[in-house]
Amino acid sequence: MDIAQRIERSIEQTISRARAPGSPPKLGQAMHYAVFPGGARIRPKLCLSVALTCGDDNPAMADAAATAIELLHCASLVHDDLPCFDDAEMRRGKPSVHRAHGEPVAVLAGDALIILAFEILARRIPDNPERAATLLRIITGAVGMPFGITAGQAWESEDGAILADYQRAKTGSLFAAATAAGGAAAGADASLWQTLGERLGEAYQVADDIADVIGDPDLLGKPTGQDATFGRPNAVAAHGMDGAAKRLTTLIVEAIESIPPSPGQAVLRQQILQESRRFMPKGMAIEIPVSAL
Amino acid sequence: MDIAQRIERSIEQTISRARAPGSPPKLGQAMHYAVFPGGARIRPKLCLSVALTCGDDNPAMADAAATAIELLHCASLVHDDLPCFDDAEMRRGKPSVHRAHGEPVAVLAGDALIILAFEILARRIPDNPERAATLLRIITGAVGMPFGITAGQAWESEDGAILADYQRAKTGSLFAAATAAGGAAAGADASLWQTLGERLGEAYQVADDIADVIGDPDLLGKPTGQDATFGRPNAVAAHGMDGAAKRLTTLIVEAIESIPPSPGQAVLRQQILQESRRFMPKGMAIEIPVSAL
Repeated sequence: MDIAQRIERSIEQTISRARAPGSPPKLGQAMHYAVFPGGARIRPKLCLSVALTCGDDNPAMADAAATAIELLHCASLVHDDLPCFDDAEMRRGKPSVHRAHGEPVAVLAGDALIILAFEILARRIPDNPERAATLLRIITGAVGMPFGITAGQAWESEDGAILADYQRAKTGSLFAAATAAGGAAAGADASLWQTLGERLGEAYQVADDIADVIGDPDLLGKPTGQDATFGRPNAVAAHGMDGAAKRLTTLIVEAIESIPPSPGQAVLRQQILQESRRFMPKGMAIEIPVSAL
Repeated sequence: MDIAQRIERSIEQTISRARAPGSPPKLGQAMHYAVFPGGARIRPKLCLSVALTCGDDNPAMADAAATAIELLHCASLVHDDLPCFDDAEMRRGKPSVHRAHGEPVAVLAGDALIILAFEILARRIPDNPERAATLLRIITGAVGMPFGITAGQAWESEDGAILADYQRAKTGSLFAAATAAGGAAAGADASLWQTLGERLGEAYQVADDIADVIGDPDLLGKPTGQDATFGRPNAVAAHGMDGAAKRLTTLIVEAIESIPPSPGQAVLRQQILQESRRFMPKGMAIEIPVSAL
């Protein structure tokens, strides 16, 4: 079973358990709708890739980490799309959760996905308390206050937010958690794997900012020009298109160079490069110096 | 330090950590506003009362359980008050979180409180993995899908919800978690303590239903007649006022009788009776048979 199959199977099993007989069907449907079909699953893939590079001696632990991270990502999208934030009509090429299932059920679906993420992590405590505790520490930190996703989203409601702080919390934190958790799930030192995710997360955000300025809404499956509309920080607005593109290249090189020495180092470098190309803005040729590979 | 002081101190410390320097101030303020000043803190008090009855040999574990439960309760109130649900103007005698801090920050405050609850529970894993795992299992189950608070709230969006299922999930689940977690935090068998919380939770909900029909909005600090307005299940609507009052008495007697034999049994019975009287609808004299005491 490859990484993508592992992720889909684990998420499917987790969501199924939440939709047990006797539960309210609409909320269960909305939770499933929020998570399937998935997007690129870039965070859980990163998590499992790092776990494999570190030996993956406890696949159930790694699957739980990857699944929790993806559920939390999907929950953040559901809440971000709500009318009081972006009021997004579309997400991943289909109506957003509140458009399809109504706003009350969308709020609850986000809440229930957050809770479910921690529930599946907590289930791993008996198996290996130390690793499970590390995963819970990393992942709660990545999504909660003071520096996780919720904080990042809240910076949109503050005057004078600093672009780097905002992006680090809103996007970088969960990417950093994905790589750190992948290492921790396999018993490696999580701190060695954090920079990889941090740089990739910032790169992803810069790419997203560029796409919001020059992207094609049909290809992206979501509207563009949203940052300008909502007055949100945007790397292109802050540094110009050339500056943003240069920053993107630098971040990917730094990400690849941060991978700690390990038997799977060369393979992971290639995987990271491929994944990075996937989220590059279409039509933008960014050359990664060969010396980084 | 009495129970109430322990609870306030633990919640205050937990919220302070979430508002670390460098975090978005408005979200931190909204989280504090959602939790202070508290209501009756009935759930965390129940939790600590049971822990004390069971010996309370790990007060930090019991404090974490009580605090997590109260944060989750407050988070559910913040989200329940949102415009897409009750659109409540007031809560605990002051403007609801979204009225005071805006809807985006209110959504995020609820999310961040949920995450914080699990974060403080996860911090107890190194100290005692087995108890922390039990607490996380009990508390995630009480708030998540398929049978926790989010499920209970979701039943409001379903046709033909069964009153008992709805109330058990929406209110009973967190009360049952409070007593079960209090026992588990002190190393007791959680399952022996669940019935106490279940009965009290249902009693509390029936009392709330009665108050929604006959209560004084000024005394309650929130509007009445909401169940009829929103077409929600209500015990008075279902069973009449006499039926609801009779059910309330039965539930409190069953709660008190369910307390397992223990050195503190008599004291706890009296405490439960006092707490129950506190949430009785004002002006309604409900006699508890002496045989139950």
